[in-house]
Amino acid sequence: MASLTYGKPLTRVQISLCALFCLKRWVEMDKEKLVEELLSPPRGTRDFLPEEKLLRDALERKLEQVFQRFGFNPIETPAFERFEVLSSKYAGGSEILKETYSFEDQGKRKLGLRYDLTVPMCRVVASNPSLAMPFKRYQIAPAWRDGPVKLARYRELVQCDVDIIGAASGIADAEVIAVACAALSELGFDYEIRVNNRKLLNGILEWAGVSGEKRGGAILAVDKLAKIGRDGVEKELLGERGVPIASVEKIMDFLRTSEGDADKVLEELSRMLEKSDEGKQGLTELMEVLDFLEAFGVRDNIVFDASLARGLSYYTGTVFEGYLRNSQIASSVCGGGRFDDLVGGFSGKPTPAVGISLGLEVLLEAVKLGLSKPLGTGKTVVRVFVAPIKTLNESIRIVQQFRAAGIPASLDLLERGVSKNLDYASKQGIPFVAIVGPREAKEGKVTLRDMSSGEEKLLTVEQAVDEVK
Amino acid sequence: MASLTYGKPLTRVQISLCALFCLKRWVEMDKEKLVEELLSPPRGTRDFLPEEKLLRDALERKLEQVFQRFGFNPIETPAFERFEVLSSKYAGGSEILKETYSFEDQGKRKLGLRYDLTVPMCRVVASNPSLAMPFKRYQIAPAWRDGPVKLARYRELVQCDVDIIGAASGIADAEVIAVACAALSELGFDYEIRVNNRKLLNGILEWAGVSGEKRGGAILAVDKLAKIGRDGVEKELLGERGVPIASVEKIMDFLRTSEGDADKVLEELSRMLEKSDEGKQGLTELMEVLDFLEAFGVRDNIVFDASLARGLSYYTGTVFEGYLRNSQIASSVCGGGRFDDLVGGFSGKPTPAVGISLGLEVLLEAVKLGLSKPLGTGKTVVRVFVAPIKTLNESIRIVQQFRAAGIPASLDLLERGVSKNLDYASKQGIPFVAIVGPREAKEGKVTLRDMSSGEEKLLTVEQAVDEVK
Repeated sequence: MASLTYGKPLTRVQISLCALFCLKRWVEMDKEKLVEELLSPPRGTRDFLPEEKLLRDALERKLEQVFQRFGFNPIETPAFERFEVLSSKYAGGSEILKETYSFEDQGKRKLGLRYDLTVPMCRVVASNPSLAMPFKRYQIAPAWRDGPVKLARYRELVQCDVDIIGAASGIADAEVIAVACAALSELGFDYEIRVNNRKLLNGILEWAGVSGEKRGGAILAVDKLAKIGRDGVEKELLGERGVPIASVEKIMDFLRTSEGDADKVLEELSRMLEKSDEGKQGLTELMEVLDFLEAFGVRDNIVFDASLARGLSYYTGTVFEGYLRNSQIASSVCGGGRFDDLVGGFSGKPTPAVGISLGLEVLLEAVKLGLSKPLGTGKTVVRVFVAPIKTLNESIRIVQQFRAAGIPASLDLLERGVSKNLDYASKQGIPFVAIVGPREAKEGKVTLRDMSSGEEKLLTVEQAVDEVK
Repeated sequence: MASLTYGKPLTRVQISLCALFCLKRWVEMDKEKLVEELLSPPRGTRDFLPEEKLLRDALERKLEQVFQRFGFNPIETPAFERFEVLSSKYAGGSEILKETYSFEDQGKRKLGLRYDLTVPMCRVVASNPSLAMPFKRYQIAPAWRDGPVKLARYRELVQCDVDIIGAASGIADAEVIAVACAALSELGFDYEIRVNNRKLLNGILEWAGVSGEKRGGAILAVDKLAKIGRDGVEKELLGERGVPIASVEKIMDFLRTSEGDADKVLEELSRMLEKSDEGKQGLTELMEVLDFLEAFGVRDNIVFDASLARGLSYYTGTVFEGYLRNSQIASSVCGGGRFDDLVGGFSGKPTPAVGISLGLEVLLEAVKLGLSKPLGTGKTVVRVFVAPIKTLNESIRIVQQFRAAGIPASLDLLERGVSKNLDYASKQGIPFVAIVGPREAKEGKVTLRDMSSGEEKLLTVEQAVDEVK
């Protein structure tokens, strides 16, 4: 191609060669793209290399510790369920079924990857009637949804759920809110939990004159307040939800009221709900839960939000959602509520239940933004790297001594020189390197290098173990 | 039905009622069976309630600790892969593909649940060319196989894999064997790891006059020695593997020899392999790995087994399998080997690799049979149960104090009486109950009952915290 300079005309051979070269490159690029695509994880899913995986694990363990401290025990259910379970009328509904990965086993049984941990839990509780009640369980595990892939929306996502089955009292509602508070506090987040009650919302709609069959739809519209604004809610209520204009005006009045001082709002509410038994019941439940939250010592982080409804239809009482304060993360970090009809739908036996789900992905995003205390993980678990200089067998014995003392340790496996090993350890973020030359090996010692200060000390293996610890 | 006594003839109405009753019961039983089936987990999978899940978690954490101590870092890959990846010629082969749960996403991309952790790991390494080598990773995660359901064979099973990518030396082979030894030793098992080398096996087949293209099949037949016995192997070699009778006789001679004293076998082998470059190479590699295992301090648990081949075709050098000694568990508890061509199959770049996989399910079975040290888990994580006697708010504050001190604690949520609460705590295996009556509440104290001795002490909450700790 060196002859392709300005001014000189090209020969036919040159043109042909050039075309061939381009064609070859085009084919190669296509092949590279194909290989690249083949090697990437499926759309909407991710691979986690050590640095990311260590952070995820640390966050999961932290949550697990808090869940256990609150007396929740772990359960595990299969990744997939019978499709009939996932599509049961008590389960997640038709929207979520569209996003369910489904398939058949060799026996032609229809199966689906779970889209949440709640439906499997309800099935497990229903199928184990001898479980002692109340049953407090947690589960930290992935669920799968074949939905649109957006920023921070994945098709494989870890959910962290705690639920109390078999306790109808507001103490249970308060306890699941308190466990979320403890988790978020311990992680060092600045947060608030917004609380409301579905019965109270129903009472307000009753007061506003919305007929029974339209209340479900109206609640879903009101729930969008933060997302689509007051005008949006008004439009949706009048339009697709078919709520009469007089009722919509009353609802909009209420929403304006609800933004004021919480005590005043509650006073106003009790006046509005005078004639609604369900509304009064909701208000009583709400006040009870708020009192219990005071006893749990987490009342400062709780906000009453009269417009909060939660998108799912199965909630029957208390509902709540957690948000980070003063942060760029607008979506909720946890949410849940009371669902007294769901477990009974599977077991045929009325079973009250209340639970909360923390989103691992959004919490991790917040951790990475520095909104939490640091979790203290790095690129590697390795604390000391043993670099032999023609002392392979002695070095193997030494690395085993570090390990026997409980210190995560690695050893050069490529017979590299010291400088290459130091370079490798430094890039990996390993804090210490133990150099074992013939002299050290003979004396049963190592030269321990502190990788951050560069300081080196000649120590016995025991001394080195203490130093690294 | 009270009138259905002997001697009296039945009226038509009675007969009809009886028939109706039976029919009703029959329909109910059918319905119950249906509900029971619907509520059970999908065929070949299991639900794990707290007691079982706590044991599984404890075992996983124990293995993880050992893996980390040996300098392995965790990675995570999605539960499903593109089907092209799972069906790639470098992957698990056609047998396993038949057992792969496959499906499409909404974009019509063909996907499959992973059947192991090795293929996804190879893809991840190939797609991250900037990973520092050697790359030592572990992954403890489920895989899925739609195979026949037998005793202790499940369709969802957890695999515990460690692999070293990018190190060709026998130190790496020895290190993955040593990490398995450390795990099994720490769990308190009596075990041995059988070691062999594929090149050595190839050399023996060369010596026996088996042509190149028949060696793969012959190796798979020899691998079945423990399962189908010497006669079975002989029959398979002559039959479906099509090995000439003279060669089969030599192989059977060798198998007889290989059962003798290891040193003698090795001596015999080096004579047999004089003319086979591959065989000599295999013998050298084997001896090197055995020497390194000596340095790692685990030689006592290693047995050279000249007939060990491992069922998978992708192994290229060292192969090994771990068994429990003096136990009723005949199947292997871990297995692995060197697979130098697999990662390169995905990346197009030669990449040596060696790894081992421990089977969580079989290890758990062994733990339950008492073949290990006890793992110390019980039915619940809860250490203390707070039982209020009309002191709900004070009791909430007290349970929160236990939790703040790091003690897993629960609280009566059903306003039950003390005796019912003691009963609940006893059935759950909770070691302490803190009873909070009005007197205790007033004095800021609890009556702490030790559930094993029945002893009760009136203590301040701080004292109770210390006592439970």
